[in-house]
Amino acid sequence: MLKGHQTWIFDSKPIIISSAAVGGPFEAKGALTDDFDFLHQDVWLGQDSFEKAEKKLLEQACETAITKANMKKEDIQFFISGDLMNQIISSTFTARTLGIPFLGIYGACSSAMESLALASLLVDSKAAKYVIAAASSHNVAAEKLYRYPTEYGSQKPPTAQWTVTGAGAGLVAEKGSGPKVTCATIGRVVDMGLTDPYNMGAAMAPAAVDTIEAHFRDLNIDPSYYDLIATGDLGRIGHKIASDLLTKHGHKIPSNIFTDCGLLIYKDDQPVMAGASGCGCSATVTYGHLLNRMKKGELKKILVIATGALLSPLSYQQKESIPCIAHAVSIEM
Amino acid sequence: MLKGHQTWIFDSKPIIISSAAVGGPFEAKGALTDDFDFLHQDVWLGQDSFEKAEKKLLEQACETAITKANMKKEDIQFFISGDLMNQIISSTFTARTLGIPFLGIYGACSSAMESLALASLLVDSKAAKYVIAAASSHNVAAEKLYRYPTEYGSQKPPTAQWTVTGAGAGLVAEKGSGPKVTCATIGRVVDMGLTDPYNMGAAMAPAAVDTIEAHFRDLNIDPSYYDLIATGDLGRIGHKIASDLLTKHGHKIPSNIFTDCGLLIYKDDQPVMAGASGCGCSATVTYGHLLNRMKKGELKKILVIATGALLSPLSYQQKESIPCIAHAVSIEM
Repeated sequence: MLKGHQTWIFDSKPIIISSAAVGGPFEAKGALTDDFDFLHQDVWLGQDSFEKAEKKLLEQACETAITKANMKKEDIQFFISGDLMNQIISSTFTARTLGIPFLGIYGACSSAMESLALASLLVDSKAAKYVIAAASSHNVAAEKLYRYPTEYGSQKPPTAQWTVTGAGAGLVAEKGSGPKVTCATIGRVVDMGLTDPYNMGAAMAPAAVDTIEAHFRDLNIDPSYYDLIATGDLGRIGHKIASDLLTKHGHKIPSNIFTDCGLLIYKDDQPVMAGASGCGCSATVTYGHLLNRMKKGELKKILVIATGALLSPLSYQQKESIPCIAHAVSIEM
Repeated sequence: MLKGHQTWIFDSKPIIISSAAVGGPFEAKGALTDDFDFLHQDVWLGQDSFEKAEKKLLEQACETAITKANMKKEDIQFFISGDLMNQIISSTFTARTLGIPFLGIYGACSSAMESLALASLLVDSKAAKYVIAAASSHNVAAEKLYRYPTEYGSQKPPTAQWTVTGAGAGLVAEKGSGPKVTCATIGRVVDMGLTDPYNMGAAMAPAAVDTIEAHFRDLNIDPSYYDLIATGDLGRIGHKIASDLLTKHGHKIPSNIFTDCGLLIYKDDQPVMAGASGCGCSATVTYGHLLNRMKKGELKKILVIATGALLSPLSYQQKESIPCIAHAVSIEM
């Protein structure tokens, strides 16, 4: 382990021996349907609340990842997970179902990579042999909590994003085969004073840029090291801002390798405004689509930078601006 | 690092080189006033909301711990913190103030030891030289969020507990002098089906017992190893239940070494019903009182088991029971 300021370099290269992605009906009409393990036609997943439906998604993603590795819950030492719900109830109730020692995290939509970074640290430091990292979100549960219940039919500006209904999980191990986690860069909070919760992409873009630059600086590499650099859920507007800022700072990333999970998951004709968002966005795209592309040999080295807007409905009501963060994880085949 | 199932053994024994505890007016009338660095007479801390007041407490605890170590914010590599607010805004806004790379966690009142366990892991695995771990709670902000605004004057049953207005922070380092973190046991979720949010102590007691027993089992030690074993915030009722359960399971802890932070912080004549609670309870008692006693030579080996009730107001309204967790950290002088 080299101490690279904000970056942890994992000498043992922990392996993602299996992963799973689960989505809802809107994701089932999306662009990456082949990369999901399960796509549910019922946004309720047979439950009597949207929050319980989100828990089901997360349970299924974790259980599927464990099953795909031919393992049992009892074999896994730690479960690290976060989500967007108050008191991360999707994760805590999933932890109850799994019965695995649990570390709850919260980094809003950056949770997907915060959990993977920590899981990799646990395995690399020999604190564990098997750790499952996960994150989830549910469109309707998130709308109800952060904005308005969807039943109200409230309109949104074109800068708004569509929260993914989905969960992703990765099983990180010291031995086995699969994509390897080589390092992780932990972000700091960046807040440029933006206050519009309907334009999270713009608020989060500077945090993504801060972490990407820290990553290159700590490792003394440039963007050409990677085949693909994917931000979490900046969407069309945030991704353009991030790209412009990086170019301005002399770290231009070629457009053929710089993408955003929030621009990949849905089809162009789906009405998602500026793109997708939610912990489930980078979690399902990474643990499904991107790892599949690595396994097919299409990608060798990728960097995923999950971005999070660390506001709460209450901090917004109290006229606070939006603190943002981004955590980056480097995965190599 | 030995792999002891749920327990991380820190070979390098990371050091808590400084710590700080900050409290409010009710804590200023309590039993441990000499152990706080600051006690505020104004529950608002001069802010226009209780949430902003909590953020001030947390900022002050972190900044005080850093100053006491003769260090600057820029010297600290990571900040790990959690609190009870939705989307842990006390921690995220403090992370904005500090500007230190941030890992947000959520374990309800177990956050105090979850953050210390992770900070110690980071230092032990050489992922960092200096990490600040912290947690906070604010009585009025928590009442408003979890129960009723205090202005309503609603009554509570004698099983209820009083959320501490306070924040504690510890600066963990690879070198220096001070109490050392020797190991940490990460708990799993235990839910015995209890549903009464006015009796959290009873709900959390089995989780505390589960983690304490895992700790003894993983390390092959018994309670006599420690001078003091302190649960986080079980209060009078939960602590009695935990004690009874441990005795029943053949792990009786003598009453002279088994205590609870929620029974230490206030005076007997303060109207706190069954005792204190909140992330700020075990955080201030540990980082103030208990570490002071260690430095005075009164205690050599302690185990702090912070307990958390992982419900949300919404999970309660949806008739869910209360999943609970406990994380234990062993500190030796």
